Amino acid sequence: MVSDDVPERALQLRSQVTYQAAIQVSVEDVDVPVPGPDQVLIRMGAAPINPSDLGLLFAGADLSKATAGGTAERPVITAPLPPAAARATASRVGQSLPVGNEGAGTVVATGSSDAARRLAGKTVAVAGGAMYAQYRCMDAAACMELPDGVGAVAGAASFVNPMTVLGMIETMRDEGHTALIHTAAASNLGQMLNRVCIEDGIPLINIVRSAAQLKVLTGQGATHVLDSTTDAFMDDLTAAIAETSATIAFDAVGGGHLASRILTCMEAALSAGRPFSRYGSDIHKQVYIYGSLDRGPTELTRSFGLAWSVGGWLLTPFLVKAGPARIAAMRERVAASITTTFACGYAGQLSLAETLQPEAIAAYARMATGTKYVIVPDATD
Amino acid sequence: MVSDDVPERALQLRSQVTYQAAIQVSVEDVDVPVPGPDQVLIRMGAAPINPSDLGLLFAGADLSKATAGGTAERPVITAPLPPAAARATASRVGQSLPVGNEGAGTVVATGSSDAARRLAGKTVAVAGGAMYAQYRCMDAAACMELPDGVGAVAGAASFVNPMTVLGMIETMRDEGHTALIHTAAASNLGQMLNRVCIEDGIPLINIVRSAAQLKVLTGQGATHVLDSTTDAFMDDLTAAIAETSATIAFDAVGGGHLASRILTCMEAALSAGRPFSRYGSDIHKQVYIYGSLDRGPTELTRSFGLAWSVGGWLLTPFLVKAGPARIAAMRERVAASITTTFACGYAGQLSLAETLQPEAIAAYARMATGTKYVIVPDATD
Repeated sequence: MVSDDVPERALQLRSQVTYQAAIQVSVEDVDVPVPGPDQVLIRMGAAPINPSDLGLLFAGADLSKATAGGTAERPVITAPLPPAAARATASRVGQSLPVGNEGAGTVVATGSSDAARRLAGKTVAVAGGAMYAQYRCMDAAACMELPDGVGAVAGAASFVNPMTVLGMIETMRDEGHTALIHTAAASNLGQMLNRVCIEDGIPLINIVRSAAQLKVLTGQGATHVLDSTTDAFMDDLTAAIAETSATIAFDAVGGGHLASRILTCMEAALSAGRPFSRYGSDIHKQVYIYGSLDRGPTELTRSFGLAWSVGGWLLTPFLVKAGPARIAAMRERVAASITTTFACGYAGQLSLAETLQPEAIAAYARMATGTKYVIVPDATD
Repeated sequence: MVSDDVPERALQLRSQVTYQAAIQVSVEDVDVPVPGPDQVLIRMGAAPINPSDLGLLFAGADLSKATAGGTAERPVITAPLPPAAARATASRVGQSLPVGNEGAGTVVATGSSDAARRLAGKTVAVAGGAMYAQYRCMDAAACMELPDGVGAVAGAASFVNPMTVLGMIETMRDEGHTALIHTAAASNLGQMLNRVCIEDGIPLINIVRSAAQLKVLTGQGATHVLDSTTDAFMDDLTAAIAETSATIAFDAVGGGHLASRILTCMEAALSAGRPFSRYGSDIHKQVYIYGSLDRGPTELTRSFGLAWSVGGWLLTPFLVKAGPARIAAMRERVAASITTTFACGYAGQLSLAETLQPEAIAAYARMATGTKYVIVPDATD
C-alpha cells in the first residue's frame, strides 16, 4: 500500500563533523525510502529533542560561536569544536549522519507482509535514529501502535524517557536495591520517574538544583526532594538515605562532586551506629551516570569505604540484557499510560528548518529544565 | 599443651583516635589470651607493615607533626588528624584498637581438640588483625602451616599480597576479561602479580612511575612496562591494550587522573577502526581501585563512552563471594610457592618499640617502592 501523496524526495536533518574541526548541521533533500516486505514508511509527525540527541547533533561544539548559512528552507549551522570535542568525535569526521532517536507518525506506505499491511494508516511510535526527517522507513515489528486518539506529538517520546525510567527501576531490582536516588530530578524524565515510583511504591530521593524545581516535584507528590545548593543538603540527604535505604543513584549531571557527595552520604547513613571498620561499610553503594549536564570531570573523594562503584548506564545495553519478554512488558505498560504516567511536556514545537535557527538552538541546547522541544518534521515551513 | 615460658602479660601495639582529633599509637602490656578447645596461641615471629595496615595504624594523621612520648620500651606516638581524616574516623574515636592484618609465628600453646594439638610447635601463617603483638590466639582452622624450613619472616606475608594477587586474577576471569592492567606495578604486590601472570600466561600491562621501577620489572621478565611520567605514555598504553585486549585494571594509586587515562586508552584501543558510535564502544571497561597511594580525589574525564565502571576492590568481600573451596585452592598454591612466586622482600626488620620511632615511621609510612618493613614482635628490644 502506498498513499498517492508520498513524494520521491523529502527533507532530513543531517550532522557532520568537518575536517576543519567544526560541526555542520543542515536540512537536506534525500530520497524517500521504499519499504521492504516487512517494513512500513512513516510520515513523521513529531520527534523530541532529547539530551541524548544533542551529542550526535552538535558533537560538543561551541554553539556560542555558531554561524547560520544556507537558505530559510535549507538552513546550515556551523560551529567550531573545542579540541576535546574534536578528539572525541574523530571517528565521525567527514560522515554526514542522520539524527533523532525517537518519534511518531502515520504509516503512509507498507510492504506486502501481513504485519506491515496491518499498520496502514495507523499512528505509530518508533525509535532507532534518523527520526528528524519527513519520512522514516521501519520494520513493522519495531513499531509501537499508539492507542486510539493519541497523536504523533503525544506519542513522540514513547521510548527514550519511558524505557529509561523503567530500565532504571529494573536495574535497581536486578542489583538488589529497594530505593532510588535521582539527580536533575525535575527534568521531564525525573517527573516521569517520580510518577512511576509513586505508582509502584518505590522510595525515591529526588535531588534538584533550585527551590523552584523542588516546588515542581513536591507539587507532584514527591516525598523526598532535596536542593543540592542548600547548606543542609549533605545532612538532609544522609537522613533521607537512612530512612529509605537507597543504595543506588542515577545521575544525569555527571561532572563535579555530586556523585561523590551521594556516595559519602550513603556511607554515613549506612555506617551510623555500627562499629568502626577500617574499610568502610560492606554494603555496596552504586552510582550510575547516565547523562552529562555537567561535562566537567567527575571528582570522587573516596571517603566512602571500598564497597562502591561509579559507572556509565545506557538504555540499549540494559535492553539487550533484559531480553524480548521484559522489553515487551515494559512497552505494554508505556503504551497503556502514554498520556498520563509517561506523558511528556514540551516548551514548543519546531519545524526541521526552525530547529536550526540560532534562537531555537539557544533555547533547547541549554538542556535546562522546562526547555524540551519537539520537532514536527511534517510542518509546512 | 602450653609451653612453660608463655608469660601472662605481653606487648601489643594499639592505635586510638582521641577526642582531640589526634592519633595515638602505643606499645601496651596486655593479657596473653588462653586458647579455647579449637584454638592455638602463636608467639608472633613476624608481621609485615602493608599499605592496608597504615590506615588503621595512623588514620590519615599528619605524620610530619608527630610527637614521640612514653619510654624506650613503651613508646607513644601522637599526631594530629586533618579535618577530613577526623571526619572519616569519627566512629573509632576513643576506641583503643589492635593493628596488623597478617603475620606468622610458632604455636606455643593449643586447645584440647585434635586440630589444635596437631599444630603444636609448628610455624604457621595467619591473618585477621591484631598481629602486631607478641602473642595472638587463633582458630586452628585459620592457620596455614608453613612448609618445613620456612621461618616466620619468610612466611609472614602469606595472605594479604598473595591472596590479593590471586583474587585479582580470579576477578578478571569471573568478569570475562583475559588480560590485566596494574598500577604502582613495581610494588612488592606488583612484582608478585608479574610472576603469577608469567606463570599462568596472562598478558599483564605494568604501569610504573619512574625509569628505575620500569627497569625492575623488565629485569623480572615483564613484557609490557610503561612509565606514566613519559610523554608517550598514553600512546604506548593504547598500543599495549590493543595488543593484549586488557579491559580491566587494578589501581593502587586511586587519586588523580590515572584511572581516567586508563579508561581513555582502553576506549581508544577498542574503538579504533570501528564505525563511530555516539555512546562509545559497547565493550565494558573496568577499573578497580584497591589502594590510595594518592589520597586526592579521583578525577574522571568521561571521554570513554558509557560502558565503564570505576569501583573499590577489597580482598575480603571477594573471598566471601569465592567460597571455601576456591579459597583453599588459592591457599594451597600460595603455601607451595611462598619462598619463590609469593616471596616478599623487606627493607628491614623492626621490633614493636622500633616501629614507633619517628625515623622508622618516616621510612615505612611513605609507602614508596622498596620501603616495606616487617615487624618482629618477639625481638628483644
